[in-house]
Amino acid sequence: MSRESAFIDSLRAIATHPAARGLADDAAVLGDLVLTHDMIVEGVHFLPADPPADIAWKLAAVNLSDLAAKGATPLGALIGYGLTGDAAWDAAFAAGLAAALDQFGLPLLGGDTVSLPAGAPRTLGMTAIGRAPPGGAPARSGARAGDGLFVTGTVGDAGLGLAMAQGRLEGPAALGDAYRRPVPLIAAGQALAAQVSAMMDVSDGLLIDAARMADASGLALRVDLDRVPLSPALVAVSGGGRAARIAAATAGDDYQLLFAAAAPPAGLPCPVTRIGAFSAGRGLSLCDAGTPVSLPDRLGYLHD
Amino acid sequence: MSRESAFIDSLRAIATHPAARGLADDAAVLGDLVLTHDMIVEGVHFLPADPPADIAWKLAAVNLSDLAAKGATPLGALIGYGLTGDAAWDAAFAAGLAAALDQFGLPLLGGDTVSLPAGAPRTLGMTAIGRAPPGGAPARSGARAGDGLFVTGTVGDAGLGLAMAQGRLEGPAALGDAYRRPVPLIAAGQALAAQVSAMMDVSDGLLIDAARMADASGLALRVDLDRVPLSPALVAVSGGGRAARIAAATAGDDYQLLFAAAAPPAGLPCPVTRIGAFSAGRGLSLCDAGTPVSLPDRLGYLHD
Repeated sequence: MSRESAFIDSLRAIATHPAARGLADDAAVLGDLVLTHDMIVEGVHFLPADPPADIAWKLAAVNLSDLAAKGATPLGALIGYGLTGDAAWDAAFAAGLAAALDQFGLPLLGGDTVSLPAGAPRTLGMTAIGRAPPGGAPARSGARAGDGLFVTGTVGDAGLGLAMAQGRLEGPAALGDAYRRPVPLIAAGQALAAQVSAMMDVSDGLLIDAARMADASGLALRVDLDRVPLSPALVAVSGGGRAARIAAATAGDDYQLLFAAAAPPAGLPCPVTRIGAFSAGRGLSLCDAGTPVSLPDRLGYLHD
Repeated sequence: MSRESAFIDSLRAIATHPAARGLADDAAVLGDLVLTHDMIVEGVHFLPADPPADIAWKLAAVNLSDLAAKGATPLGALIGYGLTGDAAWDAAFAAGLAAALDQFGLPLLGGDTVSLPAGAPRTLGMTAIGRAPPGGAPARSGARAGDGLFVTGTVGDAGLGLAMAQGRLEGPAALGDAYRRPVPLIAAGQALAAQVSAMMDVSDGLLIDAARMADASGLALRVDLDRVPLSPALVAVSGGGRAARIAAATAGDDYQLLFAAAAPPAGLPCPVTRIGAFSAGRGLSLCDAGTPVSLPDRLGYLHD
């Protein structure tokens, strides 16, 4: 067991309140409030050379994506900010944060600013608070046998964007933007909330997150690799073959919404694709054009 | 201007929502919710050799003290935890957190766990959410000319406890406990909320925090040094002379409640002492047995 999951298990033993949802959901749901907290660390979640405004954007976006996955309406955010003594970086971060919060309509309500010791990596946290949708916030664990598995938009773009940011790949700006400036799907989450039996966001990779939804729901899940939606930019760079599809379905940072539903949802502001089906049983399986395919060794980004 | 306050000023320019209270209060107040976030960093807010269970206690206590200062009833907490690869430390922290949250009746609702790069200082955050008192959460800025300044309990004990933890002083265990295990005054805060015109907790030092209340309220404030309440343990170690009183009134980490009220409050579960008075004007002044005394150079813990 990894060091992260051992510690999370010990937290899970503490978090017995129903609002905690066993620490197995994107957010806590306390009455009509949805609450989430994410930390990002230099060298782990972002690159030291990433522009500060992009990091501010991403900090807000990843938190809002958790709210989107519960169909919530954002109410505000608190920030935790570690200063490293680089005033120009801090000023650029603050300007980027102002722009991102304005773009997302997310009021900054408070937080804490601390000085980090010399040499410490930048460490940032954000708590986002939202209002649950009228019918309640969908859980990860609600999928039913017979439901389809659906995903919004396209996946894999951010993974190629990361490779571009690391200098491992050249590609179109659209892929870089997907990595640097993910867009939380707040309106889609609100429209979906009453139409889904389970929902989460894709943060660590489509396959690993889909496997988590199936596990949490106590069901088996088949994913149809040939139906995984890819962007034209991704296909242009990596082709649309099986290897490219597996890479796209195991890259992280997509922040698309993944959901289980008995029927295709209506009234959405974005495209949705049916990519699989839940059934009685346990475990994830993969098909490509109707033919069973072995699961890759790595289903997504695994925290060490 | 310090680097911390320059950055806070830039956040203040973003945080225009009334719930943010200009980032000049202990917590955000959004409708009937009170929200606070605090970060603590190894080498800055705690010593590397401090027991993990004490750090878990303190993380919860400092957040709850912010809720206490607004008279709020705690609803739950989210944690942000940076793993450093020391599983024994993490396990001891988790056990201490379980004990502290149980003691305080604070449900753990969620949060995030991340891996820190090798050598990074431990960095922890907590967000606490509470329900505002029925009459609303008192602000720091509500003091009125003619109000008295009051403080609960005694001050200065934690400052001596820190000196003991650093090996600079020998003293009784009660002082060490005040530093290691501060007790958030939730019940006192609830009882005070409807009786005060302004309230905050004493985190950076009595004089600096009192000066902040006066500034926020646009008033002058006189503090009577001879009335500052000292514990028998503190008096036994440092005497009760003027220097000891100034040291006690400028040490941090007390987590007592400081408030402005027209009359002494009733129905409190802890002692309260009147230590000064607000009047028209600006600025902090100090008296000792009726004689004006110069302000010390340092009013409390100043963030760099």
